[in-house]
Amino acid sequence: MIAELIAVGTELLLGNIANTDAQVISQGLSELGISVYFHTVVGDNPARLRQAVEIARNRSDILITTGGLGPTYDDLTKETVAACFGKTLTRHEPTWRRIQEYFQKIDRPLTPNNERQAFLPEGCALFENDWGTAPGCAFESGGKHVLMLPGPPRECVAMFRACAMPYLRALSGAGCLVSRNVRIFGMGESAVEDRLRDFMETAQNPTVAPYAKEGEVLLRVTARADTEEEAAALTEPAVAHILETLPGVVYGVDVDSLEQRVVHLLRDKGLTLALAESCTGGLVSGRITDIPGASKVYRGGVCAYANEAKTALLGVPAAMIEEHSAVSEPVARAMAEAVREKLNADIGVGVTGYAGPDGDPPGHVFMALSSKDGTVCRELKLGADRCRVRASASGWALDMVRRAVLGIAD
Amino acid sequence: MIAELIAVGTELLLGNIANTDAQVISQGLSELGISVYFHTVVGDNPARLRQAVEIARNRSDILITTGGLGPTYDDLTKETVAACFGKTLTRHEPTWRRIQEYFQKIDRPLTPNNERQAFLPEGCALFENDWGTAPGCAFESGGKHVLMLPGPPRECVAMFRACAMPYLRALSGAGCLVSRNVRIFGMGESAVEDRLRDFMETAQNPTVAPYAKEGEVLLRVTARADTEEEAAALTEPAVAHILETLPGVVYGVDVDSLEQRVVHLLRDKGLTLALAESCTGGLVSGRITDIPGASKVYRGGVCAYANEAKTALLGVPAAMIEEHSAVSEPVARAMAEAVREKLNADIGVGVTGYAGPDGDPPGHVFMALSSKDGTVCRELKLGADRCRVRASASGWALDMVRRAVLGIAD
Repeated sequence: MIAELIAVGTELLLGNIANTDAQVISQGLSELGISVYFHTVVGDNPARLRQAVEIARNRSDILITTGGLGPTYDDLTKETVAACFGKTLTRHEPTWRRIQEYFQKIDRPLTPNNERQAFLPEGCALFENDWGTAPGCAFESGGKHVLMLPGPPRECVAMFRACAMPYLRALSGAGCLVSRNVRIFGMGESAVEDRLRDFMETAQNPTVAPYAKEGEVLLRVTARADTEEEAAALTEPAVAHILETLPGVVYGVDVDSLEQRVVHLLRDKGLTLALAESCTGGLVSGRITDIPGASKVYRGGVCAYANEAKTALLGVPAAMIEEHSAVSEPVARAMAEAVREKLNADIGVGVTGYAGPDGDPPGHVFMALSSKDGTVCRELKLGADRCRVRASASGWALDMVRRAVLGIAD
Repeated sequence: MIAELIAVGTELLLGNIANTDAQVISQGLSELGISVYFHTVVGDNPARLRQAVEIARNRSDILITTGGLGPTYDDLTKETVAACFGKTLTRHEPTWRRIQEYFQKIDRPLTPNNERQAFLPEGCALFENDWGTAPGCAFESGGKHVLMLPGPPRECVAMFRACAMPYLRALSGAGCLVSRNVRIFGMGESAVEDRLRDFMETAQNPTVAPYAKEGEVLLRVTARADTEEEAAALTEPAVAHILETLPGVVYGVDVDSLEQRVVHLLRDKGLTLALAESCTGGLVSGRITDIPGASKVYRGGVCAYANEAKTALLGVPAAMIEEHSAVSEPVARAMAEAVREKLNADIGVGVTGYAGPDGDPPGHVFMALSSKDGTVCRELKLGADRCRVRASASGWALDMVRRAVLGIAD
C-alpha cells in the first residue's frame, strides 16, 4: 500500500512553521511498512486543495491530510476532501454534544463556527480528539482510504499514534518492520558506498540505505517479516556484513551518537575522562556532557584558548609553546598529560589547532591522548571552514577516545 | 510570480528529517513577494521526480529543488530535472578543479562519484557552494525558471540567501527589499507579540514578522522601495519603535547571534572573558569560540564537572561545596572569581546547576559574574529537560555578560 500526505495550511507556505507533522507520520507509516512516495503542502485554498487531492488519489492508495479542521472560516479540509469523493457532511451528534460540553467547561461562548467541527463525512470512522476540539476521521471510497487529522503538531501526533496507526495497521495487514542503525565515523559517504555498492544495490529484504549527517554516515538496515523476531533476524547478516566490510569505522549499532557511545563505553569499562581543548573551545566537553550520566565518567576539562591559559591552567611551559608554537605535537601531548594528571582521570585528551579563518594552515589540528599506556598523538587536516573544522575535530577527538578504550588502532 | 518547492530525498519520506529547507526558502520567497502555492517532497526516484516536475511546471513560474545533488548513486536531481527541460549536462571545469582541490585539502581520496558533482546543465548560472562540495545552479527554459539547491540545511540555507535570493530578486523586478533582523533574548514569543501586537498587525511597509527559535525571538522588519536606500530608510522607524518598546531584551539588530554580539562588544570595549562552567559543560565556551576573532577576547575556560575538578582547577574549597552543595550561590561566585583571577581576565563567569534528569530540582541554576566592580549572582529555574536547560543556561550566561558590559540591569 502506498500513502501520500497532504498538509493544508498557508502558514506552512509562508515558512512560519516547518511540516513536522509529515515527519512524524512518515516515521509511523515506515514502521507499518506502508510506503510514502509524496508529501504535498497546499494553502487554505479549496481549488488548490482539490487539485492536490485529485493528483494524490490517482497515484496512492491512502491519503492522509493534516490541518484545516479548525473552527475558522479558512478551515476547509473536510468540506473540500469530502466533495472530491462525493461524500456529504452530516452533523455527528455525539461530537456536537462533546464540543458543547467542552466550551461549557472552559467557560467560553460557543460560536456558530464551532458547530461546523461536528460535521463529518457520512459513514466515516471518527477519531476522537482528546487533545483539542477538532475531531479527525477516516473513510473509504472507491478503494481509496482517506484519513483527516488536525494540524497542530500536539494534536496531530497524538491522534495519529492513538487512532490512525491502529486503523492503518488493520488495513494494511502489514506484518512487521524492523530497522537497525549502523553509525560510522571517519569515512565519507561516497567512500562507504564505494565499499558497499553491490551489497546495497542488491539488498532487498533487508534494504540498506545510507544517510550522511554532520560528518558522519548512517546506514539504515530495514527488514520486513510476519513477526518482529523474524524481521530482526533478517537484519542480522546484513549488519554483520557491514561490520566486516568496514572494520573500525563503525562506532555503534542502534546507538544515538558518537558521544553517547563514548560515555557508555567509559562507563562500562569504569574509566574516567578529562579534556584539554584549544581550537574546539569546549565543543568536545559540550558533547560529552550532553549525555545523561556523563558525570559518572567525565571529570572535567579545560578550554585553554589563549597561550597563557595553557600555562596558567595546565602548566604547559611557555618555552615549549614559544619553541614549537601552540599548534604542535609537543603542546598537544603536554595538554593531554597535564589535564589527565590534574583531574586524576584515566584518559586525558589534548586538542590544539587552527580553526580558521586565521592560522597557517587553517584546519591543521593535533590531538593527543594520554593513558596509563603512554601518550599517542595524531595530526589532522580538516579543511578551511571554521565551523566544520571545529565540529570535525570534536568528532575525531571523541573517536580517538573510542578507539583507545577498545584498543583499535587509529 | 508563483514558485513551487520540490524537495528530493527518501530520508524526508521516511521521516528521518523534517523539511526545514522548505520553511527557510518559503520565508525568503515571502520577503521577496513571490507567492508559494505548493511544496512537494519526493524520494530519490527519477520517475516520480519527473512526475513532480511536470506537475509543477504546469502550475508555477519558478521551480526550486532542494536535495539530490550529492555524489552518491541515488543523487539524481540534476540529471532528472535537466532531462525534463531538454538540457544536457556538461562538466563545469572550474567546479571540477574546485572539488579536486577540496579533496586534496582535506586529504581524502576522490572517488569517481565526486566528478559527477561537477556536471551541470548547459548554459546554467552557477551557485558556488562555499559551504560544501555540491554546487547549485539555475536556468531558464520556456519561460520557466529552475533553481537547484543542495539538501543539507546548512548548505541549502546559506546558498539560498547568498545566491538564489539575489537571482530571484533580479527576476521578479520586485524593487528593492531590505530586511532588518531584531534579535531578542529573555522574553518569550507570546510576550513579545503581546507588547507589539497592534504595531505588527497594522505595519504594511515595512512588515514585521516574528520567528521563535531556540529560546530566542527574531523580529524581521522588511521594507520594499525603488532603491535600497529608500527601503533601508523605511525600516528605521519600525526598528526604533521595537527598541523603545522592548528595552534591554533586544540584544542586537542585524547581528548573527548572541555569542557574536558578546564577542564584538568585548572586542569593542577591549575587555577579556574567562568562563567556569559546570552544568553547561563547555557549551558557553563552545558558543564563544564559534565566533571568528574570539581569541582576541576569550582567555579560556574551565569545565569543572566533577566536584573535585572545581577544587583542582579553580581552588573552590571542598568545605564550601560540602556546606552549600555544588549548586549554590557561594560556589557560583567562587567559580567566577577564581577563573577571572586565574586567567587574568576582566570578566569571569561561573555557572553551576542541575541539568537534569537528576538533581533537585532539575533546571535549578546559579550563575555569577565577577568584574572589577565586584561579583553579582543570579538564580534561574529553567525547567526539566536536560538539553533545554543547558541551551537556555548558556544563553542566560552570554546575556549576563552582554548586560554587564553595557551596564544594563538584569
